Amino acid sequence: MVSPVRVLPNAAQRATSLLRTIQYTHPPSCPCHSNPGYHQNSLAGLIPRIKDAGQRRYATPGDNSGLQEYAFEMAASAIRFGPGVTKEVGMDFKNMGSKKVCVVTDATVDKLDAMKQVREGLTKEGIRFDVYSEVRVEPKDNSIKHAIAWARPQQYDAFLAVGGGSVIDTAKLMNLYTAYPNADFLDFVNAPLGKGLPVDKPLRPLIAVPTTAGTGSETTGTAIFDLVEKRAKTGVAHRALKPTLGICDPLNTRTMPAAVKASSGLDVLCHALESWTAIPYNQRVPRPTNPILRPAYQGANPISDIFSLHALRSTVKYLPRSVRDPDDFEAQTEMLLAATLAGIGFGNAGVHLCHGMSYPISGQNPGYKHSGYQVDANIIPHGVSVAVSAPAVFRFTSQSNPERHLAAAEAFGVDITNVKKESAGEVLAEALIKFLADLGDQPKGLKDLGFGNEHIEALVEGTIPQARVLMLAPGLSKELEAEKDQLRLLFEDAMTH
Amino acid sequence: MVSPVRVLPNAAQRATSLLRTIQYTHPPSCPCHSNPGYHQNSLAGLIPRIKDAGQRRYATPGDNSGLQEYAFEMAASAIRFGPGVTKEVGMDFKNMGSKKVCVVTDATVDKLDAMKQVREGLTKEGIRFDVYSEVRVEPKDNSIKHAIAWARPQQYDAFLAVGGGSVIDTAKLMNLYTAYPNADFLDFVNAPLGKGLPVDKPLRPLIAVPTTAGTGSETTGTAIFDLVEKRAKTGVAHRALKPTLGICDPLNTRTMPAAVKASSGLDVLCHALESWTAIPYNQRVPRPTNPILRPAYQGANPISDIFSLHALRSTVKYLPRSVRDPDDFEAQTEMLLAATLAGIGFGNAGVHLCHGMSYPISGQNPGYKHSGYQVDANIIPHGVSVAVSAPAVFRFTSQSNPERHLAAAEAFGVDITNVKKESAGEVLAEALIKFLADLGDQPKGLKDLGFGNEHIEALVEGTIPQARVLMLAPGLSKELEAEKDQLRLLFEDAMTH
Repeated sequence: MVSPVRVLPNAAQRATSLLRTIQYTHPPSCPCHSNPGYHQNSLAGLIPRIKDAGQRRYATPGDNSGLQEYAFEMAASAIRFGPGVTKEVGMDFKNMGSKKVCVVTDATVDKLDAMKQVREGLTKEGIRFDVYSEVRVEPKDNSIKHAIAWARPQQYDAFLAVGGGSVIDTAKLMNLYTAYPNADFLDFVNAPLGKGLPVDKPLRPLIAVPTTAGTGSETTGTAIFDLVEKRAKTGVAHRALKPTLGICDPLNTRTMPAAVKASSGLDVLCHALESWTAIPYNQRVPRPTNPILRPAYQGANPISDIFSLHALRSTVKYLPRSVRDPDDFEAQTEMLLAATLAGIGFGNAGVHLCHGMSYPISGQNPGYKHSGYQVDANIIPHGVSVAVSAPAVFRFTSQSNPERHLAAAEAFGVDITNVKKESAGEVLAEALIKFLADLGDQPKGLKDLGFGNEHIEALVEGTIPQARVLMLAPGLSKELEAEKDQLRLLFEDAMTH
Repeated sequence: MVSPVRVLPNAAQRATSLLRTIQYTHPPSCPCHSNPGYHQNSLAGLIPRIKDAGQRRYATPGDNSGLQEYAFEMAASAIRFGPGVTKEVGMDFKNMGSKKVCVVTDATVDKLDAMKQVREGLTKEGIRFDVYSEVRVEPKDNSIKHAIAWARPQQYDAFLAVGGGSVIDTAKLMNLYTAYPNADFLDFVNAPLGKGLPVDKPLRPLIAVPTTAGTGSETTGTAIFDLVEKRAKTGVAHRALKPTLGICDPLNTRTMPAAVKASSGLDVLCHALESWTAIPYNQRVPRPTNPILRPAYQGANPISDIFSLHALRSTVKYLPRSVRDPDDFEAQTEMLLAATLAGIGFGNAGVHLCHGMSYPISGQNPGYKHSGYQVDANIIPHGVSVAVSAPAVFRFTSQSNPERHLAAAEAFGVDITNVKKESAGEVLAEALIKFLADLGDQPKGLKDLGFGNEHIEALVEGTIPQARVLMLAPGLSKELEAEKDQLRLLFEDAMTH
């Protein structure tokens, strides 16, 4: 058990300063503060609206701009979970009547047992397939376009992704852009960088076999990549992209090195924490005029909450064991399940500041190479870039909903009985800092990655385009200059834990 | 808080007698007793198999008969939840490109606001539709066949169900049998009463709009009806039947009379309790030779557990409020959500004895008419017939996994700190009896419904055909005569609470 702590003077000053930025600069722009009780873990927020709705004042297209959302939607891929299930995938394609399958992987996974099982399974059922193994880790638009160009002429009737998030995300985009053979690449990319058009027809079946316990991409409709010309991480997010089936086989994640287990697991941790603390769906504006426009990243809701909190508790319990002991299959198995559950959670609620800030952090790497990664280039693994700012982020967001941040601290084993609401963010931050330190080999802030105050402006500018996730950050101003001020303070706070 | 109780002499005798039937009559037939620790809420049961699986001893078709299941699958309809969302359904069909929709409802719901919203929504989007409003409550094979015959010639490209479980189940079967125009009615009906053929092609989109908070049918692939010639409740269960989308609109459940709220809610309660206590998926035999043969009712698993326990806690909290106060929209809204969550839970895990025994209870009604139901005929509402045997059932099943039954008792507010494992069943039974009594207007056992000992044999005979759910009952013998002995004692115990 981590013992309860009081607000530390320094952190308290920073939090107060951030809060002041919100409260005194732009008081009316933040719904979180105009309605402090909004963010309870219940449907209570619906109730006033039920009474309003009794009058049947329904929106018609065009008049929804000022209305808050009134509904949430929950969708997830079917999930099959068990040691050895990879082998079944040939029968699945046969059952679906698939004749020609596009198998997507990367050069490393191509040599692993997972791909051996896949090849045997498909061959045994007589399914024709080609293997595209050129997926790049942390894919860029160019590598995605290469994969799409490879697949487009082939008329595949199904897709199979075997790998980590990069592989699964690339396969989703190959599936999308082969279904729209004449679409421009930016057509479906998230606004404001792309056009963010809705996907209005069903895609081909996609089965995803994750080989890391991290992204949860096997359950979500999100695909992330670097848009190089804009120097930004972005992606495509639509429920239509979600795989038909995720095949989660704990035998496939055993080969992850400890450092990859740790950083993948930190991604799970932040998926859970960010979706749990995201603004609630019924505070999102505008209400969509058509259900197809309801974003997958819709804010916290009563169903995503169940997944997010469960995944958080599992990760706190099993990630340290999984990293420490390569033979702890129970912990590895539970982490694969936690990754999937967190995927369902954030896939229907969204993430916010840790992820939004992580993209420039990893993209503007000043020269850091994470210990335990067997690569030539400098690398800040995704999970590391996400978790490094987490203590600062939750100190900041706790102002909007201390109860939820206290519940998160409790999931870390903190006794919150006598902790005051004002200390919620600091208590959660301290629990996170201790968790990261105990996990080992984690940077203790952006300084450890080589960042200094001179980088803050570029980091802020690199975060601003993440509109899709920033809109879900509780307490973040909707006014650009105020938002930048808040982000500057957040990056400053994240320099050292 | 309900205070902890000790085993009462009578109940203890009954439990011991039941246990003796299992232990001494057929010791090797019950996996629950040969492996008493099997049923923990974790993936620990997977672990030995991970090591086995390292040897890659994979099953090939035909040799799985003696192998236990090693994987579980989780699938659920997409769910949209919010007051007023019924109105969006026209846009959904337009988004899917539907041209001609079959709307399925019953004569009562046809006059309610939900159907008004549906008609307006479809008309506004210019969608052609026909309304079939002849669905019968607790449908029989004849009424289902009538509905199928009505739909088959029409070439509908989508289905919309607006109503309770009977309506949604009928719509699922209309969708199934129009996709297989030459199939015999028994082809897809659960074995042993039907042939239980797998559904091997995708069906048309089906959107379900529940108007009760009970069956959870909007999320499941199950459709239940009376097979009159066999005097048994049976149905079709396959993931392919599950709706594309469940539209859960709390405005649609406001009109339920209090008695309907209570009995629908008791169905939710038992869905949650039965799926939470069902045998675990990895004790099910045989391991399927093809994933398409993996039943939706696959036993408790780590994902269904999350839903089942959450739904149980919500039902305990909100059902009494919802029944007591027709203006408590928060409680009604939470009950609609609980029904849906329990649906996802049992839809992927299954139910067992309460449901298995309920079918002959309602089918062999000696002349009971439940208070608050405005119908001419005698009626034991489904939820009442399910809950009436619950105290006896959980006294019996607690022997196989006392920890889980204690956790369930805790969800009812019982302080389980000092309760011994041997008392788990009795403590849960007492909590259930108190819950039912506090809810009001509930029978205190089968005697209150008009049953006596002279009916037990017919009730047992009517339960035996429920193989699909009985196979998930922990502690129930696989040997027919022993199973009948156990069921006799269960019905006897259920005569009075």
